[in-house]
Amino acid sequence: MSAPSTQTGCVIGVDLGGTKLLAGVVGPDLAVRHRVRRRAFGLDQATLMTTIVDAVDEARGAVAEDVVAVGFGIPVTLDRRTGAAVYSTHLPLAGVPFAAVMSERLGLPAVVDNDGNCAVLAETRFGAAAGASDVVMLTLGTGIGGGLVMGGKLQRGWIGAGGELGHMVIDMDGPPCQGKCPNRGCLEVMASGSALVREASLRVARRPDTALGRALEDGHELTGPFVTELAHDGDPVARDAIATVGRALGVGLSSLVNVLNPEVIVIGGGVIGAGELLLEPARAEMHARALLPARDAVRIVAAAFGDEAGMIGAALLAREPSA
Amino acid sequence: MSAPSTQTGCVIGVDLGGTKLLAGVVGPDLAVRHRVRRRAFGLDQATLMTTIVDAVDEARGAVAEDVVAVGFGIPVTLDRRTGAAVYSTHLPLAGVPFAAVMSERLGLPAVVDNDGNCAVLAETRFGAAAGASDVVMLTLGTGIGGGLVMGGKLQRGWIGAGGELGHMVIDMDGPPCQGKCPNRGCLEVMASGSALVREASLRVARRPDTALGRALEDGHELTGPFVTELAHDGDPVARDAIATVGRALGVGLSSLVNVLNPEVIVIGGGVIGAGELLLEPARAEMHARALLPARDAVRIVAAAFGDEAGMIGAALLAREPSA
Repeated sequence: MSAPSTQTGCVIGVDLGGTKLLAGVVGPDLAVRHRVRRRAFGLDQATLMTTIVDAVDEARGAVAEDVVAVGFGIPVTLDRRTGAAVYSTHLPLAGVPFAAVMSERLGLPAVVDNDGNCAVLAETRFGAAAGASDVVMLTLGTGIGGGLVMGGKLQRGWIGAGGELGHMVIDMDGPPCQGKCPNRGCLEVMASGSALVREASLRVARRPDTALGRALEDGHELTGPFVTELAHDGDPVARDAIATVGRALGVGLSSLVNVLNPEVIVIGGGVIGAGELLLEPARAEMHARALLPARDAVRIVAAAFGDEAGMIGAALLAREPSA
Repeated sequence: MSAPSTQTGCVIGVDLGGTKLLAGVVGPDLAVRHRVRRRAFGLDQATLMTTIVDAVDEARGAVAEDVVAVGFGIPVTLDRRTGAAVYSTHLPLAGVPFAAVMSERLGLPAVVDNDGNCAVLAETRFGAAAGASDVVMLTLGTGIGGGLVMGGKLQRGWIGAGGELGHMVIDMDGPPCQGKCPNRGCLEVMASGSALVREASLRVARRPDTALGRALEDGHELTGPFVTELAHDGDPVARDAIATVGRALGVGLSSLVNVLNPEVIVIGGGVIGAGELLLEPARAEMHARALLPARDAVRIVAAAFGDEAGMIGAALLAREPSA
């Protein structure tokens, strides 16, 4: 693993989520020179692709240094035999040979991987799991992304479609999963940002006499970040919703601990803004369910790069496409 | 990976399950020269250890050739930092430095691994997944064991306690798991041989007018192999019980396909005696739930070594302890 500081030139990392996009110009020292954010929700394929191209062009134009390559972390399953995006829960990207199209439109070398794979790469190389050989990463946002490092290597599975940790079933007769996922009771539908909004919404209907209830009455939109903000302020309904999501997360973590025996589990994505309000019940639930010795050996921590892990990892991948 | 035929001398492989033990003397050509079976259920630790030693001694005495090493596949989580068995759902082996004790009592080099790890080693090297780099193995018996090969390597996790695929949750509020597992709704409690007996028992109470019902009335014991035999003969209650277990298995397989994107999933253990009666509903359930392209890419097949995969893998490990 060569440190990025040995290489010259900037790269652009792009993390495309279920509702938004973050592009960052990343220097050889891993410092982020410039960030561009775009909303990318409910767009058709052509508009989405143009939105991405525009964001990268804007980022590229904002720095004086040369940009030598671009890496994309996108929420799709890939088939590395063909290079095509095969399936996306949230975005209209099925069938798109994403890296080839972007490379041509941007006139830059482009590389693509699943967003969760990018995030685990960043956290294992330089973040919360630096130095660990067996790492699980979960990114909790609109959906749940994931990535696996085992035996010191990023494990994408046979054709590159693995690491879909959000689509591990924790409740076989549970609610239908999100978007186009045909499954029921996936971790994604129980422990994502969307689940947090649903849990808060159910609770506030019974407890309108709370900070959250009054804010909604005043016309405030019920979003994950807003629930998290009120929870940090002590609102009981918001805290209870986060704890419920944390326990569901902990059920999934117990499966991952038993199956993979990781040294570190890193939790990223927007929902990790809740910090210990989320992690404490998640750890407790995992600990009540998983087997020894793996349950006592694992560390469950917040992403060092926060919700920028995917973007940083995409930049690392641009720099080193064989990572 | 060196083929065993290049090595000389016999080894003994021992597969210790939740209720029984199989020891086999395996030649350099992988042929099994002699088998010893023992019931190992409800024994205290001292009696269990002596039963194992006696079985190995009997196997060793039954062949004229020299036995050069012994390998054990045991249903425990191991801590490879200490070499000790840490946890067993079904057997009183917690805290036992198993390989060291066996080596001393038998006067032979001894190596130990989880039984599921042994089984996946056998099937990936010479069995149903030969040549594949990403393989999931499940052994369905009294409990459910598992093993993972990813990127061409056996992946045991950080301290060697991974691969506990039977303790992946598929129903977070489901029935308490078996033995000392603190979890609920694990694959093991929904899709093992024990689950098959439970499902058949529930059904036959409502349908005593069946071959299974009449056999029980005649005093026949309700066991997994007996249910399987009647299912092959066409008994509707037995077939229905196997299909229910197959569907629960399929839920677990959908998680494994999404998380690991294996090329092959191998199903072994005693329950695979049901063959396609089990695999067909399992494949259908997986296919209805998992994501593209992984769900169309995976093959789900019966173990080539049947319920001897763990024993053969333990023998391979005896031959090549670094496998």
